[in-house]
Amino acid sequence: MLITELAQLCNATPRGGDASVTLQSAADIMSAQAHQVTVLSDGKYKKYLKDCQASACFIAESLIDGDAPAGLTLLVCKDPEMSFLVAVKALHPEPALDRRISRQAAIADTAKLGSNIHVGPFASVGQHSRIGDDSTVDAGARIGNHVGIGKNCRIHANAVIYDNTVIGNNVIIHSGAIIGADGFGYKYRDNQHVKVPHVGNVVIDDNVEIGANTCIDRGALGATRIGWGSKIDNLVQLGHNNLVGKNVIVCGQCGISGSCTIEDGAILAGSVGVADHVKIGTRAVVMARSGVSQDVEPGAQVWGSPAKDRKIAWRELAALAKLPELLQKIKQLESRLTKLEE
Amino acid sequence: MLITELAQLCNATPRGGDASVTLQSAADIMSAQAHQVTVLSDGKYKKYLKDCQASACFIAESLIDGDAPAGLTLLVCKDPEMSFLVAVKALHPEPALDRRISRQAAIADTAKLGSNIHVGPFASVGQHSRIGDDSTVDAGARIGNHVGIGKNCRIHANAVIYDNTVIGNNVIIHSGAIIGADGFGYKYRDNQHVKVPHVGNVVIDDNVEIGANTCIDRGALGATRIGWGSKIDNLVQLGHNNLVGKNVIVCGQCGISGSCTIEDGAILAGSVGVADHVKIGTRAVVMARSGVSQDVEPGAQVWGSPAKDRKIAWRELAALAKLPELLQKIKQLESRLTKLEE
Amino acid sequence: MLITELAQLCNATPRGGDASVTLQSAADIMSAQAHQVTVLSDGKYKKYLKDCQASACFIAESLIDGDAPAGLTLLVCKDPEMSFLVAVKALHPEPALDRRISRQAAIADTAKLGSNIHVGPFASVGQHSRIGDDSTVDAGARIGNHVGIGKNCRIHANAVIYDNTVIGNNVIIHSGAIIGADGFGYKYRDNQHVKVPHVGNVVIDDNVEIGANTCIDRGALGATRIGWGSKIDNLVQLGHNNLVGKNVIVCGQCGISGSCTIEDGAILAGSVGVADHVKIGTRAVVMARSGVSQDVEPGAQVWGSPAKDRKIAWRELAALAKLPELLQKIKQLESRLTKLEE
Repeated sequence: MLITELAQLCNATPRGGDASVTLQSAADIMSAQAHQVTVLSDGKYKKYLKDCQASACFIAESLIDGDAPAGLTLLVCKDPEMSFLVAVKALHPEPALDRRISRQAAIADTAKLGSNIHVGPFASVGQHSRIGDDSTVDAGARIGNHVGIGKNCRIHANAVIYDNTVIGNNVIIHSGAIIGADGFGYKYRDNQHVKVPHVGNVVIDDNVEIGANTCIDRGALGATRIGWGSKIDNLVQLGHNNLVGKNVIVCGQCGISGSCTIEDGAILAGSVGVADHVKIGTRAVVMARSGVSQDVEPGAQVWGSPAKDRKIAWRELAALAKLPELLQKIKQLESRLTKLEE
Repeated sequence: MLITELAQLCNATPRGGDASVTLQSAADIMSAQAHQVTVLSDGKYKKYLKDCQASACFIAESLIDGDAPAGLTLLVCKDPEMSFLVAVKALHPEPALDRRISRQAAIADTAKLGSNIHVGPFASVGQHSRIGDDSTVDAGARIGNHVGIGKNCRIHANAVIYDNTVIGNNVIIHSGAIIGADGFGYKYRDNQHVKVPHVGNVVIDDNVEIGANTCIDRGALGATRIGWGSKIDNLVQLGHNNLVGKNVIVCGQCGISGSCTIEDGAILAGSVGVADHVKIGTRAVVMARSGVSQDVEPGAQVWGSPAKDRKIAWRELAALAKLPELLQKIKQLESRLTKLEE
Repeated sequence: MLITELAQLCNATPRGGDASVTLQSAADIMSAQAHQVTVLSDGKYKKYLKDCQASACFIAESLIDGDAPAGLTLLVCKDPEMSFLVAVKALHPEPALDRRISRQAAIADTAKLGSNIHVGPFASVGQHSRIGDDSTVDAGARIGNHVGIGKNCRIHANAVIYDNTVIGNNVIIHSGAIIGADGFGYKYRDNQHVKVPHVGNVVIDDNVEIGANTCIDRGALGATRIGWGSKIDNLVQLGHNNLVGKNVIVCGQCGISGSCTIEDGAILAGSVGVADHVKIGTRAVVMARSGVSQDVEPGAQVWGSPAKDRKIAWRELAALAKLPELLQKIKQLESRLTKLEE
């Protein structure tokens, strides 16, 4: 694709260099070479522009200051990140799957498949399940009984969707994710843990993405819900009856116990833990490795274990670093005091 | 099922309302509607009883105080939690599997299957393995060679049981769980990590449940053992040669390094880590997100990282919160002292 | 195998006992019985030698002091750990697989398989993928399209290798590991998280071992790389564009965000978290459960969350334990001071 063509596709204006060069791929600004396009969207990478070997670079007007090499075509645009994102997709198109239902898949006779469905080898779809148009079930994935999957979904290889799960449109579920296993609930009676039956399910709304090897347990009664557009990373544990709102971000290895409410737009950074029955408010941010045991206010930013307002937590942390020398100082004060008392 | 029938099944006595109403399902007290049964077992939910829309509610005599709506039949019983558990099972029976060995499964010629076994499509059972009566191996699960599985077990879809694993009766293993992979052991020689051969196995006793995507490694020599009735949640890492006792609870995302002993009835809350060769005593409780590096006494309750007696840990935590203002106070004391000294 | 034969195989010299005894298996020094061989390599287990029931024991000259039972043959050698390792392999040989490509596997017509390949039932290999001589793909594993796998690799049951992954020789990938899923990257625009396309891949060098249910995400652009001889434990999250050097050790449940550099020989103990764009230097050690948010110097040993030099962190920890009584002491000092001031 010519630089000019890509510029047009991505709402950018070419400036300088040779815009008739052909682009073959995309790369980051530190490693990009001739015939590659890159992006400069963050001022802290500006130092790399001077020696950039790429043929073209998306950039906002505000970051241009004449430092670019002569051979580099600047692709001036309003939102370089988004323009570059479109460019990456254009230059690296996903290879077209030869879409078909593998003869080595097992589709139950009562399952209903839409049009243009792809099912890989050794995938299986259980009784009374429905899969919408243009959806893909990759090799070895298991779709249980009475499962509903919307349109244009992708269930990657070896993912497992337990019975009665409901999944909306445009949902991506990565390999090894387990949706709808029983929650972890027992009653201790007569020297044994008696299993609490889990007769609820998991309901996943449109445009959700769920990472590899993440587990989302079914509700004991009622549903565990993941709202519109929320994104869950790899190896996350989402327990029974959690209610996750819209556009929520849950980073890798988070663990959310059960019956929690995570409101719209909240962000949980990596390895955050949340205790049972906790509510995390709209657009709240829980910083990495925090343990949340109490409700978090909308918009709050919390850190630590147990998590508290991040400024307070950091003040405590800074004070702790001074504590060893403080112990010395107190001793000195005490001996000075004793001397005065004598 | 009529309220009267359910009451009889669950050892409860109907009081008030219309006990001839038909029940269709179970729900929690906040969301239950007509033709649903619910439960009130925890005083803190008592406020929801007054406006409860359910047709029936399990309740202990001690929680009744005349607040129930006229249309609600109280199901008075000794143990509302257990009565409700029985009710949930009765009202939400698991749909009967059409039990058979799928023609799309791969059963080794030397494998021995009991009666009434169900094997899903694309499940495979290796050489010399044995599966007891009434057990189920779901789609895509892999049972290795020389594996023993008892009666009435359920191995969910895409779980993997490595060679030589021994599993008792009534064991549930959820999807994606990996039982018997090699432990993580190397000797560093001549600039490389030489793999320690792992020739032990995993032995799981009766009535154990193992969560989705949990990993239990085989012993290097000898076995990694999970005792009778223990329950392991999702995404847990249980390393080589750990010995887990009876009725132990291990919550989600715990990591137990290796050669540890977790004694009967111990509870590890979510995301707990345990270092090598540590012993956690009978009925000890390790609170969420703790890191245990030393033995824990029977019955002890520990918290923190490194974990210590929870009261001591909390006292330190409370003191830490006062530390920033303490720094100020020390400065004031010092200047007052200096003034006196002058 | 006779003790004399094993001694020869393992570069050890038999001393005492009856070296013509037949050995059947290996065990640790506390549980070894007659006809078993064991090892004493760590002085702290020396107390078990006196009552050791094994028939033979690898031991270094320096640990011998006449305490061994009369019936025990000492196998004197320079490196007891390595000699024992060889002995374990010799006494517990892996049963020979009946190597073949299962008729129940799905191999794409454009895939190229080397010689002596084993592919289990319900494993699938995608278009244009290549697998080197002597490699094994176990039951249910999924090898995507355009994947390269070297010689003598083992991909265990139900592991998933996404498209375009490149794997060297002698690589072991345990069950449930997911190699090459999309990294976790979005741009927030117009009230939604827009997915960043991930067109990079994962490149794994020779002699790497990857644990069960570990996830290694593909690069957004370019590769996520795991260097020669590195060993990754179970349930680890390795995000997009991380560069892991040679002989690195990453223990269970670590989470490495993205674009990090982990240099040669570094060790990350269990459940360590590493923030984006961090560099961990050569042979640095990050202790268990630490959270690393800034670069770690080569050879440094760090602990805590946020991680700092371990000696400093421990000094703070020790000081924290004294803080509650310090609060008392300050109060006393203050009242003494007040008295003086009056």
